[in-house]
Amino acid sequence: MPSEFELISRFFSRPTRQAVLGPGDDCALLAPSAGMHLVITTDMLVEGTHFLPGTDPWQLGWKVLAVSLSDLAAMGAEPRWALLAASLPEACEAWLAPFAEGLFSCAGRYGVDLVGGDTTRGPLNLSLTALGEVPAGTALRRDRALPGDDLWVSGQPGLAALGLAQLQGRTKLPAALAERCLAALQQPLPRVELGRLLRGLASAAIDVSDGLLADLGHILERSAVAAEVFVAQLPALPAGVDPVLARQCQLAGGDDYELLFSACPETRNEVVELGKQLDLPLWRCGRLTASDSHRLALLDANGRELTINRKGFDHFG
Amino acid sequence: MPSEFELISRFFSRPTRQAVLGPGDDCALLAPSAGMHLVITTDMLVEGTHFLPGTDPWQLGWKVLAVSLSDLAAMGAEPRWALLAASLPEACEAWLAPFAEGLFSCAGRYGVDLVGGDTTRGPLNLSLTALGEVPAGTALRRDRALPGDDLWVSGQPGLAALGLAQLQGRTKLPAALAERCLAALQQPLPRVELGRLLRGLASAAIDVSDGLLADLGHILERSAVAAEVFVAQLPALPAGVDPVLARQCQLAGGDDYELLFSACPETRNEVVELGKQLDLPLWRCGRLTASDSHRLALLDANGRELTINRKGFDHFG
Repeated sequence: MPSEFELISRFFSRPTRQAVLGPGDDCALLAPSAGMHLVITTDMLVEGTHFLPGTDPWQLGWKVLAVSLSDLAAMGAEPRWALLAASLPEACEAWLAPFAEGLFSCAGRYGVDLVGGDTTRGPLNLSLTALGEVPAGTALRRDRALPGDDLWVSGQPGLAALGLAQLQGRTKLPAALAERCLAALQQPLPRVELGRLLRGLASAAIDVSDGLLADLGHILERSAVAAEVFVAQLPALPAGVDPVLARQCQLAGGDDYELLFSACPETRNEVVELGKQLDLPLWRCGRLTASDSHRLALLDANGRELTINRKGFDHFG
Repeated sequence: MPSEFELISRFFSRPTRQAVLGPGDDCALLAPSAGMHLVITTDMLVEGTHFLPGTDPWQLGWKVLAVSLSDLAAMGAEPRWALLAASLPEACEAWLAPFAEGLFSCAGRYGVDLVGGDTTRGPLNLSLTALGEVPAGTALRRDRALPGDDLWVSGQPGLAALGLAQLQGRTKLPAALAERCLAALQQPLPRVELGRLLRGLASAAIDVSDGLLADLGHILERSAVAAEVFVAQLPALPAGVDPVLARQCQLAGGDDYELLFSACPETRNEVVELGKQLDLPLWRCGRLTASDSHRLALLDANGRELTINRKGFDHFG
């Protein structure tokens, strides 16, 4: 079996373009850009908790980086560097080769250098740290939403959770929809470009990783506001699927990696234009109100309040 | 059981002094210092691979940060920030509270801010990313050692491995020595001050995490030199322990977190003075020679070559 050092060298040491010193020393050396803040996040994916045993290694390699780039996107950052720590049950080349391909495909797509990491033996666990940069003072945060702001969400939240339901045999989707939902689950596209263009436009932002309502709850709490969500202004539920499940996935499903953001109503046209520019649907789906109760009200098309389990995904809940 | 967010908030969200934005958003925001390079490393500790089941949580909290600070020390960096991703079998407060205490004790001792992280459910796995800074162009690296340089090591390598042998019942150490070895294993002191003062003095450096000879091998490989190690100039083996085991631990034991470094012979007195200043023994234990064979020769007091299993700790070897 190849050694840890051979593994790192063979699969994870590719030339870096944005590092002073890449993999192979005790640490990586990076030269931060003048006038920028560093934006950093770490995420851990555990087999059986975040992904099913037997998940395709290429897709897993893509996703482990994509979910962290989504966090950078939610801050409006330019992705630049990443480090991967991986615990593996065995050093299996047939698994590592496609995993590395998926990882570097995502890195290449978003201009990220893998500058270091750690590999060890143990239950399958992938911990990725991603770093980006943002002009000082312009980062999108959760705690700057204001009463009166519109609430927006990108893309079609809920597809990833439907994909998971399909994989687990809890629903049977029409073939074309199944394919779309599985792609959303297995190869998410972090909204990096959207995040970058929302700088100076959005008042607050978060990525939808734990479910739309749960993640909205974080904005409400950190910004000390309340919200009304207009359920009828969310994207139409896909055809050919149980509407109760579809709505549940849309409001409380995890793993979407869309951006949920607030912006003042005066910029409404700018946001619409941005969506056209990116060819990405942006849905104005609610508004924030002045209350530090963090209350989240779901309203139907007639303004009547709906009830739903607003709980998102919480690993110890 | 408390939720993931409650856990993070209760145990891992302490005020930060060196962050623009600490825990609680999608990412942390940091302001790198002008003229400095960023130094970054990530390490993963897995129960059963890196520490024994039942390890004291306070000591584990200390160690998970200390081992990464040791990597920063080996680059000559000032430690500044850390992020912790943790997978836990259960959200047990009786474990988490002392773990967090140990972690923040180490952070406080070395001036580090915990600025973010991730907690999830799964087999016990701790992944820590540490960041430091070093004036641009002054970082210590593995690849700058030169033929003719002296080879030095700090402290007393081998104590941690003896501590592990004691814990595993493979040896029975005298009480005072056992205590010292267990402290070396369970609460290592990263050589941050030494690393900082070696800038401009050492030609290459590495921390001794995988064993003295194995880590020396990395310097030889990256610097394309060979080495002679003068075994008689290493610190005397401790009394009251099998000398074969003690020598094995000294040369090939892991987990020491001493610094191994090279420096040109003209600076020999400076290095000696540095050791006195820090009250830390520094042992001139070898020299580098001109050969790109990476050959490592162990010589006795008479210059005769010894043979020993030079293999260090390699997780897939």
